[in-house]
Amino acid sequence: MKAEIIAVGTELLMGYTVNTNASWLSQSLLKIGIGTYYQQVVGDNQDRLLQAIKLAHSRSDLVIITGGLGPTKDDITKQTVAQFVGKPLVQNKEQEQKIRSYYQRRGYVYDIHDANQGAMLQDSHVFFNHVGLACGFGVNLETADNTPKAILVLPGPPFELKEMYKKDAEPYILNLFHSDTVIDSLYLNFYGRGEAMISKDLADLIDAQDNPTIALYAKPNRVTIRLTANGQSHAEAEALNQQLAKNIIDRLAPYFIGFGEQMTLEENVLTLLKQHHHTLSVAESLTGGHVMNQLTKIPGASESLYGGFVTYQTIAKENLLSIDAQLIETEGVVSESTAKEMAEKTREITQTNFALALTGVAGPDPVDDKKPGDVYIALAIKDEPTVVQFISVPDKPRDIVQESAKDAALNLLRDYYQKQNTEQMFSF
Amino acid sequence: MKAEIIAVGTELLMGYTVNTNASWLSQSLLKIGIGTYYQQVVGDNQDRLLQAIKLAHSRSDLVIITGGLGPTKDDITKQTVAQFVGKPLVQNKEQEQKIRSYYQRRGYVYDIHDANQGAMLQDSHVFFNHVGLACGFGVNLETADNTPKAILVLPGPPFELKEMYKKDAEPYILNLFHSDTVIDSLYLNFYGRGEAMISKDLADLIDAQDNPTIALYAKPNRVTIRLTANGQSHAEAEALNQQLAKNIIDRLAPYFIGFGEQMTLEENVLTLLKQHHHTLSVAESLTGGHVMNQLTKIPGASESLYGGFVTYQTIAKENLLSIDAQLIETEGVVSESTAKEMAEKTREITQTNFALALTGVAGPDPVDDKKPGDVYIALAIKDEPTVVQFISVPDKPRDIVQESAKDAALNLLRDYYQKQNTEQMFSF
Repeated sequence: MKAEIIAVGTELLMGYTVNTNASWLSQSLLKIGIGTYYQQVVGDNQDRLLQAIKLAHSRSDLVIITGGLGPTKDDITKQTVAQFVGKPLVQNKEQEQKIRSYYQRRGYVYDIHDANQGAMLQDSHVFFNHVGLACGFGVNLETADNTPKAILVLPGPPFELKEMYKKDAEPYILNLFHSDTVIDSLYLNFYGRGEAMISKDLADLIDAQDNPTIALYAKPNRVTIRLTANGQSHAEAEALNQQLAKNIIDRLAPYFIGFGEQMTLEENVLTLLKQHHHTLSVAESLTGGHVMNQLTKIPGASESLYGGFVTYQTIAKENLLSIDAQLIETEGVVSESTAKEMAEKTREITQTNFALALTGVAGPDPVDDKKPGDVYIALAIKDEPTVVQFISVPDKPRDIVQESAKDAALNLLRDYYQKQNTEQMFSF
Repeated sequence: MKAEIIAVGTELLMGYTVNTNASWLSQSLLKIGIGTYYQQVVGDNQDRLLQAIKLAHSRSDLVIITGGLGPTKDDITKQTVAQFVGKPLVQNKEQEQKIRSYYQRRGYVYDIHDANQGAMLQDSHVFFNHVGLACGFGVNLETADNTPKAILVLPGPPFELKEMYKKDAEPYILNLFHSDTVIDSLYLNFYGRGEAMISKDLADLIDAQDNPTIALYAKPNRVTIRLTANGQSHAEAEALNQQLAKNIIDRLAPYFIGFGEQMTLEENVLTLLKQHHHTLSVAESLTGGHVMNQLTKIPGASESLYGGFVTYQTIAKENLLSIDAQLIETEGVVSESTAKEMAEKTREITQTNFALALTGVAGPDPVDDKKPGDVYIALAIKDEPTVVQFISVPDKPRDIVQESAKDAALNLLRDYYQKQNTEQMFSF
């Protein structure tokens, strides 16, 4: 069973848009056990798109086409699929109604091109667009021996694509290409040890892998390991994953931060705070709000995150946190003492259980005698001594320095909890 | 003249690596006037790669293959090109020497697979790898009438690809597909008007486009227009772009935020603040520090950005900004009054020229009677009345709501300057 993805859009061929849809779809298909064998990109040109569809359909069982569903005359995906299949497009009444009321609400003129977003192939399975205007569809062009051969049409904007895939396209695919074995995936996340080292730590397991398979993904400051098992039942596949996961976590316990595909230090820290009914405030200098902002990306953050200060200029540290100008003068604005004072003053003002503070040099220029990438991080803890950590992130652009500082700060808090209660962190 | 890019790598088909090489190469080719008509991705499989090369060579004049040059047995790009062309691979002595000394320095065992990184097609033009181990090459398979038809092989790691492209591959391409005309590009950025509306505003220009060409790129909350002109000299091409740019800016003046490929509202606002020697502080609720953080990504932000508050919990608004609990109780934490108070109190505390404040519902749940995506933004201005704006970003995930709120806030400040001095903003 082979899948193929065709992304349509001149903006992709001009290089202005990166084809993240192809990678996201390939990853999503792999999770349900379907391998992608080809990806193609073609522009908004009906002849070339038609050739691409012909080629894809001839060699792949599942063809997913993304993009080119919009209201301009460049958007030719649906017409081209109709031409290939040899059936007309028809309006989906429900989607058309959504488009019409959208235009009415905004007082826009509604013309034929706009209405086209509600078109679908005759006798196809519609995918309603809940978060945008253009519907998608799926059609099964099964072969003479009833083997399914499907073409799916999905929107180009990633947010719409993902919503539609999860809600409608994936169930449609699963139903069509029904498989007897069940796939289960388990994600393990590690912080503080690089991909190369983890590869060596697990070399014997990686070499011997069969079921489950082991895949390593390196993200900045983090490694995610995905275990994928198949079995006759979900329970069987799950048990295989859990057994191997236990072995891996035993070897890498100090670096393990949790399970989950998207498990981040942010989630890890918010979960810990919530479990303990603790609150956190933050004072940020070089990170300029990045620590708090990343925490607020997670729904429910407001239960544990009080908020805090961005004391970007030195005067902000003095005025907002009442840090002694003399101390900053003597010790330096990027120093252990300043970080400690920032954290402690913030905790005093906010009366939270914890306060994190970060001061450092984002670069590209040094500050006083401190080099770009030098960062001091402090964690003030209610009724306990403040912890201060120094990290160095040399030769990196500003956003990587900010990201590394953010991760180190969150890890400082995670570490605190881990030392309090190791068992709880690593229990299955 | 048609270009095509083939990216080789199973990691691309598994979706763990996003194909940024294809977009980077397409963009780079376009800058020298060469359009990419197709992009393909195939795995580390010799049969499928061979088919991809055959197809590409049959329909495109310039085929660039990236990836699969490494030392493992999965890396089959060079052998496959050799098979297609019908010539053997030979060792490039210089590259082989580099590999050998790299391995010696590190005490690694040097075997045949490692040596393979130094291989190139016989009679091809070598691209030495200055920043990695695997060399690339270019070969011209010109047709009977001496029309060039080239295949280039470049490494997969983006950093190596870019270095090799700029240093060797681009000159090779320019030399082979020699063109007498000079290309010039000009980027115009707009905020506050969608791609669809701008397409309509410029419909006549877009329909009539020839030289310069007009390309529209929509990013979240922003549209970039790229004009690409060619002429006998750089001055001629540049003049053509500027003439058309003037026409476009005249039509879309209220939305124009500046020139430049990467121009953002953040840069725009920081430049304005700096020009006027003004300072800014910010109080953020739903955005959790995103506004300040994005500003601090730009070197030199500390000259204009004081810092500010993340008043995420309601209690933080009361404690850090001394906002009357009664007001929040009566008007709601997400309200015009609360936004106004946040901005004014922040400006009072920080004594900056401007203070921006944002309060809203990031979602997914409503707050009181306010829907997800409802946001109030206030701009407090020294010696002038505070401006408050309401925006609605319905049915979007938290990060899009935060991004839209951030852009609207920055635009509120930009608008203020624009009203002060329209001439300065739009002068050429």
